[in-house]
Amino acid sequence: MAQEQESKPRERFTEISIAEFFSKNKELAGFSNPTRALYQTVRELVENALDATDSHGILPDIKVHIREVEPETEDRPARYEVTVEDNGIGVPKTVMAQAFGKVLFSSKYVIRQNRGMYGLGVKAVTLYAQTTTGRPVFVVSSQENSEYVYYQKVKIDVKRNEPLVTEDGQLLKRSSWHGTVVSALVEGDWQRAKPKIIEYIRRTAVVAPYAEIWLVTPENEIYFFPRATKKMPKPPREAKPHPHGVDLEQVKVMLESTKAGNLLDFLKEEFQGIGDKTATEFLRSIGLRSDMSPKTLLRKDRAKELEEFVTKLRTFKGFRGPRSDYLSPIGEELIELGLTRMFKPEWVKAVTRPARAYQGHPFIVEAGIAFGGSIEPQEEPILLRFANKIPLLYEEREDVSYKVVTSVDWSRYGVQEPYQLAVLVHVASTKVPYKGVGKESISDVPELESEIRNAVLEVARSLRLYISRKQREEMVKEKLVTIAKYIPEVARSLAILSLPPEKLDKQYRELEARARELLISSVSSSVEMPKIDGRRADPRALVEAIIKGVEIEEVR
Amino acid sequence: MAQEQESKPRERFTEISIAEFFSKNKELAGFSNPTRALYQTVRELVENALDATDSHGILPDIKVHIREVEPETEDRPARYEVTVEDNGIGVPKTVMAQAFGKVLFSSKYVIRQNRGMYGLGVKAVTLYAQTTTGRPVFVVSSQENSEYVYYQKVKIDVKRNEPLVTEDGQLLKRSSWHGTVVSALVEGDWQRAKPKIIEYIRRTAVVAPYAEIWLVTPENEIYFFPRATKKMPKPPREAKPHPHGVDLEQVKVMLESTKAGNLLDFLKEEFQGIGDKTATEFLRSIGLRSDMSPKTLLRKDRAKELEEFVTKLRTFKGFRGPRSDYLSPIGEELIELGLTRMFKPEWVKAVTRPARAYQGHPFIVEAGIAFGGSIEPQEEPILLRFANKIPLLYEEREDVSYKVVTSVDWSRYGVQEPYQLAVLVHVASTKVPYKGVGKESISDVPELESEIRNAVLEVARSLRLYISRKQREEMVKEKLVTIAKYIPEVARSLAILSLPPEKLDKQYRELEARARELLISSVSSSVEMPKIDGRRADPRALVEAIIKGVEIEEVR
Repeated sequence: MAQEQESKPRERFTEISIAEFFSKNKELAGFSNPTRALYQTVRELVENALDATDSHGILPDIKVHIREVEPETEDRPARYEVTVEDNGIGVPKTVMAQAFGKVLFSSKYVIRQNRGMYGLGVKAVTLYAQTTTGRPVFVVSSQENSEYVYYQKVKIDVKRNEPLVTEDGQLLKRSSWHGTVVSALVEGDWQRAKPKIIEYIRRTAVVAPYAEIWLVTPENEIYFFPRATKKMPKPPREAKPHPHGVDLEQVKVMLESTKAGNLLDFLKEEFQGIGDKTATEFLRSIGLRSDMSPKTLLRKDRAKELEEFVTKLRTFKGFRGPRSDYLSPIGEELIELGLTRMFKPEWVKAVTRPARAYQGHPFIVEAGIAFGGSIEPQEEPILLRFANKIPLLYEEREDVSYKVVTSVDWSRYGVQEPYQLAVLVHVASTKVPYKGVGKESISDVPELESEIRNAVLEVARSLRLYISRKQREEMVKEKLVTIAKYIPEVARSLAILSLPPEKLDKQYRELEARARELLISSVSSSVEMPKIDGRRADPRALVEAIIKGVEIEEVR
Repeated sequence: MAQEQESKPRERFTEISIAEFFSKNKELAGFSNPTRALYQTVRELVENALDATDSHGILPDIKVHIREVEPETEDRPARYEVTVEDNGIGVPKTVMAQAFGKVLFSSKYVIRQNRGMYGLGVKAVTLYAQTTTGRPVFVVSSQENSEYVYYQKVKIDVKRNEPLVTEDGQLLKRSSWHGTVVSALVEGDWQRAKPKIIEYIRRTAVVAPYAEIWLVTPENEIYFFPRATKKMPKPPREAKPHPHGVDLEQVKVMLESTKAGNLLDFLKEEFQGIGDKTATEFLRSIGLRSDMSPKTLLRKDRAKELEEFVTKLRTFKGFRGPRSDYLSPIGEELIELGLTRMFKPEWVKAVTRPARAYQGHPFIVEAGIAFGGSIEPQEEPILLRFANKIPLLYEEREDVSYKVVTSVDWSRYGVQEPYQLAVLVHVASTKVPYKGVGKESISDVPELESEIRNAVLEVARSLRLYISRKQREEMVKEKLVTIAKYIPEVARSLAILSLPPEKLDKQYRELEARARELLISSVSSSVEMPKIDGRRADPRALVEAIIKGVEIEEVR
């Protein structure tokens, strides 16, 4: 082919590494200013700490220590050393440098409900530390069965996206300690970040009451969140991809790397939710032979068939839904406990919905509502958002849950403005569709939005029942009061009227008591108290209380 | 060093490519559902088309053609072919495959005010196309002086992040055409995306009235935005880094690659805003010799000095501010024109603020306000956001401009609810701090926030002046009406009273006219009409108009 001499291009094309990309665009990972950056540093390290513990069945002991190392100057923000220690599974020595010093190298690239989602967080911390203070992150770690404690100081060579280890060593382990300590020196603004960081830890403790968390602040204040229970939810587990969640590129890679000798085995071995029968039925439906070699589909002349194969995989109705038993919801009990502790409400209820899926990713939505009691009246309901057990604090108004909660006409559920209402929404999924890698708000994926609505409205209907029954109870009580308060008087009159004057003295008390008893029984049995939360007030006791009240008033 | 036999790790660590990362997390680049994805596809291609034209001094001719190729089925969304053609500088054949098929390979990684910011957009389109429809993007391009038109079909090998060219060819060019045509086949939802896409093109035309834009929809509707002016703003230019905007990593790379033989030349050649005098003064201030070799600072034993060098670079007060003459604002005239066309308001005004900088990145904020007239009354002011001449439509409520505009107490500026108010904010910068790679909302960087506030309030103060003068004018007019309407009557009475009855007939008209003139002059000169937008109503004309009104009323 003839190749002309090209004129000097008017644009300069260059390639940058992913490390350089995030180093230059820190705000994309949540490091947009000293306040957010300090908050984000704490978040990423704490989330890694929790992923290393409760996701592996270990009761978390987390220590967060923030220390001011250099005060703010006219030229630059203050510098803080953020240290987070966990008692988790530890980082293998062989991958330590890369896990902290190579972007897009991570243990999170599996189909599992992790707090970490992009495998970027801690590398973003490393980048932020080295570009603001020039210091490497310091990592100390030991696995459970290891004889050694390893430590490294790690930076990132941003041009090549490779770890730069500036110090490296190991110590013989003399205790049974295992876990990881990460320490980063970063620029930040503690005064402004403080309320957010404390709220973040507080809400983390709400949904992980089985964790023990210490936070030591630069002022040496200690916030201690003790372990409230040793009961942990079943940890999430890793799953194979669901056929509805794959795309053409992914299937090609799977076909290339599979060990299965034929398409039938390929389907059964590489995907979740496909058994022998379904696989056979599926292949028949698109006219492919069960014994065809998977590699055949990669041939150039089979491109059309491959495409159809993938489209069918994504849409075939015969597969079981995505495995949700591998997800780890918080559970109704813990949500209700958390809301009760936080708000001391009059009424609380939570629901864990059955699993659903979007684009082949399973998810579970949980919702909880706290109403009345000590909740401060607000113009809008208070919204507590969680995703994979992480509290989300920023960018609330762009979150799908905010859209749902503010679109509910709460007056239809008996709730009046100003709202004494807190709504908690938790989304657990192998893939939470965050809007940004900073993980602060969730996109309005239709399946997710509708399921969040279902969850919130399900609890809202219970609330309406509670409120309307409470109102009915009050109406009945009012009616009871109007009638019952005349009982003593009527009983007295009846007794007087029905006795000849000479017997009045002797039989009066007895007759009055009988008349009263008769009236109480008749009134009590004529009303039915509504059942509230499974309990029903005893009308007889109410009537008697009313009478007592009347009599006491009269005596006064 | 002794290396123990490590136990099997409990986590599987893997590395993924940046292409795989964005392929799996499409929503991060704005492709979160079929509606957003179609919108985003159009956006990315149109923004590239504009960057290839007006940024190089070419009056843009842009054609957008969206065609439905396959209708929606029960199983999947409809498929659309999106084609965008421009008359820009063209893509050199040598980089064509990479420019469309390799993530993080781009011409946007320079310090210049581009619409494209991350060099991701078109690659995200390629990824979205190939994962939803399996089709490559089709690129046709020719540079101005090229004898050929080149074409390629490009996909991305996601595992390796390398382009996959499935077709490749060239044609002898028989016309003087130059530019680029990109065509992508994607899943989408035109019905829902339609209003957003049309609004996007409409607003693009508002700030680029020198562009001619055609949009042909799947229904074969044609939206034509003709060129309203041939006057183009000065194109943005590429700048060297400003010392306040660099970090340690960047300086290291610069020191490694510089051709300067000593530190003095290094400062002068590699940075903007540093002359001989400043460089000398700067080096003296940190005690480094002017003739020191730049590479010396990279030596391990100089780490501390290098760090200090960078800190000083970032904070030294003696440098000139970042070059803002390389930025390309819209200009007050075009903003006012755009707002007037869009809203037909009673009053409009815009301001282009002087350049400022955040973290070494220069930026210019422009704000415009339209008030009254045909603006529909709203609960909140209408906000039109632009960044580097791109309209931003989604995620308004998380944008720093929304924060500013809703925090203004508009009643203090004379604007009453419901608002007949539209506020336009444009941020031009070599680095717009978007919250996500989808480029929909801007972070609240303090310097930016305060400058947006300054810009909006500056125009708001003009508006207050206008409104208060209008109110004053109305008060004066009212007062004038009360006085002036008696002038004919008073003149008549004066004439009658001051003439002996015999002369009444002869001199009456003359005297009445004189009295009237006297009264008109005296009343007119006793009031001062406020100046509104530089013009002042003529009180005499007003008085005469009032009198006329009164007389006409009397006649009736």
